[in-house]
Amino acid sequence: MAELSPLLADRWSPLAFDPGVELTRDQLTSLLEAARWAPSIGNTQPWRFLVGRRGDETYKRIFANLSSQNRRWAGRASALLVAAHTVTDPATRAAYDLGQAVAHLTIQATALRLHVHQMAGFDAAGLRDELELPAEVQPHIVVAIGRLGDPRSLPEDLRRRETALRSRRPLAELMLR
Amino acid sequence: MAELSPLLADRWSPLAFDPGVELTRDQLTSLLEAARWAPSIGNTQPWRFLVGRRGDETYKRIFANLSSQNRRWAGRASALLVAAHTVTDPATRAAYDLGQAVAHLTIQATALRLHVHQMAGFDAAGLRDELELPAEVQPHIVVAIGRLGDPRSLPEDLRRRETALRSRRPLAELMLR
Repeated sequence: MAELSPLLADRWSPLAFDPGVELTRDQLTSLLEAARWAPSIGNTQPWRFLVGRRGDETYKRIFANLSSQNRRWAGRASALLVAAHTVTDPATRAAYDLGQAVAHLTIQATALRLHVHQMAGFDAAGLRDELELPAEVQPHIVVAIGRLGDPRSLPEDLRRRETALRSRRPLAELMLR
Repeated sequence: MAELSPLLADRWSPLAFDPGVELTRDQLTSLLEAARWAPSIGNTQPWRFLVGRRGDETYKRIFANLSSQNRRWAGRASALLVAAHTVTDPATRAAYDLGQAVAHLTIQATALRLHVHQMAGFDAAGLRDELELPAEVQPHIVVAIGRLGDPRSLPEDLRRRETALRSRRPLAELMLR
């Protein structure tokens, strides 16, 4: 890996969160502020959020709408955050900017020694119903946030996934010329 | 602003780049590596890039396809980068992940004391033609990268924009409950 800021180099998406850790309100505010100050096209700020903290009703409703695979580990996270974007034409504009905002939140999490794991596996219609999301937003991703836990607490197959080496395409494959 | 990592708090999108600064190959590699290690759904890594350095043919072709507003200032940037995503269904998935990758690149730029300004104002069909982009990618944004220059070098109206206070919606407006 080339020389990267530790906030980027130390970021990865764990499955083993520490089920004993709670996020303070200041930590949550700091994460959301990071997202809030992200750049967006024409400063449109198309990102919208909803946060549940472990034990509260919102967390339970988000958790219940995760895929069964994600429910195997995500309930240990300290917070579950629904990241939605406003409905625009083209929708790719708002989705792109939401991606930037969640990336900024993730970097701030790393700065707070927290970890983040994003999940696309959830029932969007179920979330929309149970959390009464307004029609003008589209939930895009659910973000698990917490402190790193012990991978030995995971079921065998997840533990193997947790300890596998991270990989990416070589840079040359990403370059268009 | 809540307590934010300096890499986030110090990030903003200038118009006044220093026209005398060139990026080293190591700096460019570091920026692209930051993007490369971003997370993506199922590790699909849908991001593709094309970089021109001031003075080279790629830079000229990218610059020529910017909107006239962007051409007023972007030619001082040290590099112009086309960020594209692969064509997927739904396209919002790839656009979201591209947003994450460009955000990671931007944070790394801040770590290198560089600045980044993203532009949606460009002729996508023109870029596609002149740079012979493959049909399976969609150029989404052009990113100007460089070192901060003197705002007094800007035309009056751009200087006012450059020195205006940054603003965002209050956090409460972003929360869905």
